[in-house]
Amino acid sequence: MPTYHIELFEGRTVEQKRKLVEEVTRVTTEVLGSAPESVDIIITDVKRENWATGGKLWSEQA
Amino acid sequence: MPTYHIELFEGRTVEQKRKLVEEVTRVTTEVLGSAPESVDIIITDVKRENWATGGKLWSEQA
Amino acid sequence: MPTYHIELFEGRTVEQKRKLVEEVTRVTTEVLGSAPESVDIIITDVKRENWATGGKLWSEQA
Amino acid sequence: MPTYHIELFEGRTVEQKRKLVEEVTRVTTEVLGSAPESVDIIITDVKRENWATGGKLWSEQA
Amino acid sequence: MPTYHIELFEGRTVEQKRKLVEEVTRVTTEVLGSAPESVDIIITDVKRENWATGGKLWSEQA
Amino acid sequence: MPTYHIELFEGRTVEQKRKLVEEVTRVTTEVLGSAPESVDIIITDVKRENWATGGKLWSEQA
Repeated sequence: MPTYHIELFEGRTVEQKRKLVEEVTRVTTEVLGSAPESVDIIITDVKRENWATGGKLWSEQA
Repeated sequence: MPTYHIELFEGRTVEQKRKLVEEVTRVTTEVLGSAPESVDIIITDVKRENWATGGKLWSEQA
Repeated sequence: MPTYHIELFEGRTVEQKRKLVEEVTRVTTEVLGSAPESVDIIITDVKRENWATGGKLWSEQA
Repeated sequence: MPTYHIELFEGRTVEQKRKLVEEVTRVTTEVLGSAPESVDIIITDVKRENWATGGKLWSEQA
Repeated sequence: MPTYHIELFEGRTVEQKRKLVEEVTRVTTEVLGSAPESVDIIITDVKRENWATGGKLWSEQA
Repeated sequence: MPTYHIELFEGRTVEQKRKLVEEVTRVTTEVLGSAPESVDIIITDVKRENWATGGKLWSEQA
């Protein structure tokens, strides 16, 4: 607690994920006063054919 | 807003997904009056070995 | 299967939800060929103070 | 209803999943009095590079 | 890890939830060999007007 | 895209949420290069009787 779920397009590097969870955890502890080890983050890599906005898959956006 | 998550068995074609998000977005805008571009849909393809009903995985249903 | 989660701002009427689940289920069965009774939909009413876009809560958008 | 989502590290065998959903369904029906066929369980296999605790990905924990 | 999300109809007592999380945690540790303290469970109480099966809200099922 | 879901114990002030979404959005744009307006964050306030760790509800932790 808190627990994060982050959904983003696939293709991010491990280095980007490493930096992202480090920074998100840091600002969370700063704002909420939580202990870092209580922050859990689960990332989901989403294919563009599985995400739609405005009724159109991102794999088909021009 | 609104944001949809749809979990379905893997194996659907991109054409089915394309049609599904188009139709779901259309009825959403009709019923709720939302702008189409405010409708986000994320699809998750679930393996049959990862879905159970009645205590039994779907990969093992007769 | 399929299972839907729909997150929308709180304040929708039961009549809107009734119509929304009816229509979403209908187009799902049409596109995917699923039986209606296999379509599960869970709606989450989200407060504007719990949804942010662009780093700003919707309760604070002008 | 009820519906379970279980996120665990990838690498579990189908036999472990088979046993897990059987047992989780059994205790659910015992405690809540639900019919077994009303219990749905969806499992998500999470890569260690997609799960962080304490600001560090599990793929990088010593 | 593992992390559970359980969605059920509102109206369950705290005693039922207490027993449910105890039992689910116990069978999880038995089947997966996880340490009990690594098992996190989040319960969501869902109103019948927010859950539909077969295109019909449960608040309106006969 | 990306979309965040943050589950935390109920009781946080709107000011804390306001600051949290601002900071999480900022670090996300810095690390991933996303436009701020593409970052969506949904917060869920969880009661202590609905969150368990180690088989015990947080409402009952000593």
